Amino acid sequence: MTEDLMTRLELMSLQDSYVAALDAARLEDWPTFFTDDCLYEIIPAENEEFDLPAPLVRCTNTAMLRDRVISLRHANIYEQPAYRHMVSGMIWSQDGDEIEMTSSYVVINTSIEGESEIYQAGCYKDRVVRTPEGLRFKQKRCVYDTLRVHTLLAYPI
Amino acid sequence: MTEDLMTRLELMSLQDSYVAALDAARLEDWPTFFTDDCLYEIIPAENEEFDLPAPLVRCTNTAMLRDRVISLRHANIYEQPAYRHMVSGMIWSQDGDEIEMTSSYVVINTSIEGESEIYQAGCYKDRVVRTPEGLRFKQKRCVYDTLRVHTLLAYPI
Amino acid sequence: MTEDLMTRLELMSLQDSYVAALDAARLEDWPTFFTDDCLYEIIPAENEEFDLPAPLVRCTNTAMLRDRVISLRHANIYEQPAYRHMVSGMIWSQDGDEIEMTSSYVVINTSIEGESEIYQAGCYKDRVVRTPEGLRFKQKRCVYDTLRVHTLLAYPI
Repeated sequence: MTEDLMTRLELMSLQDSYVAALDAARLEDWPTFFTDDCLYEIIPAENEEFDLPAPLVRCTNTAMLRDRVISLRHANIYEQPAYRHMVSGMIWSQDGDEIEMTSSYVVINTSIEGESEIYQAGCYKDRVVRTPEGLRFKQKRCVYDTLRVHTLLAYPI
Repeated sequence: MTEDLMTRLELMSLQDSYVAALDAARLEDWPTFFTDDCLYEIIPAENEEFDLPAPLVRCTNTAMLRDRVISLRHANIYEQPAYRHMVSGMIWSQDGDEIEMTSSYVVINTSIEGESEIYQAGCYKDRVVRTPEGLRFKQKRCVYDTLRVHTLLAYPI
Repeated sequence: MTEDLMTRLELMSLQDSYVAALDAARLEDWPTFFTDDCLYEIIPAENEEFDLPAPLVRCTNTAMLRDRVISLRHANIYEQPAYRHMVSGMIWSQDGDEIEMTSSYVVINTSIEGESEIYQAGCYKDRVVRTPEGLRFKQKRCVYDTLRVHTLLAYPI
């Protein structure tokens, strides 16, 4: 079976736009990449592997995503670190009306002192659907390899 | 409005070719990616944000880029570090005859002793135009997050 | 000459699928990306530059790749680190029936203690051919910048 290359390109565009919003700190745009009844999770690879649901973050609709943005904006009254999301190794498959998409990610964080370091490496496990407004995430699960004590109000991945 | 996916692919190809030239240390090819009357800048995010123009590097035409290459070649008589430019999160929009393109970048540097580290993270703010020879950068502004004392003759980003 | 953008997209898909298999630790899938009479090498940039053939790894057919997978599976009875391959700067050209493709890569490694660091930076020098099953690597040479004592049974790059 030949891959539908234009769908691949559309999916790359979706992921790039998502990353661009986060890296430009356009947090208010973040929920707009999701369907209303979405699932957004940040979960350690260990828990994923052994099927122990203990996500760092879990939102089950866009209202929760928007609340999270408000909390982040209120909590972060001081200057923020800069994030750069690198994405690679995307594979996808059609599953009925939904697209299952997996990608590796590495997030680089630069502190306000100007030190750049690896903030988090992991894997996006996404489910994407077509909507009248274009492709949207019905599910984005960020399964991370890096174990580190994160701040309570972790920045979206 | 639906995105023109083939233009996206062309833009990705331009950025990839640009990065490939730098990572292969083909410095002499670097100016060929620009229009004659280009703007090339490397500028800290802080200065960008507060509109304080104090770029680390500023070239306003390809002759200046070529001069820079000659300086780099003469200055760097010793073995050079290796650079790897990772690019992600590309978004673009048509603006009249020009294309505005933004991408996140992370440059990894490996010293001659073989130590790899994050050299610079930041954001490309590009303006691209169509020429008879293909897409060219009319502007490439490298807005970097990482604060570190750079060498006087910084390698192109 | 205009680039064949659909071939570019196919090549990106091949590289992404390759990386996805490695990052998901689907080692058994790794040999399936190669033609039977392939060349797979991991070699330091220094040796490549001065034409001193002393690769860290050298396999000249898929049977050797499969043997390597078996060795890795047997040797690695303990929990493995996680790898994330970032790829960028892809350029390619047609050379008769084969495609020559070059890309920069950076591999991030997360130890079982959860520490993420740069494992290896370098350049893929690939030769790709069309087969009835799709694009396959006839050659993949991983020319690495990072000098570090690797484990005897290095993970595929």
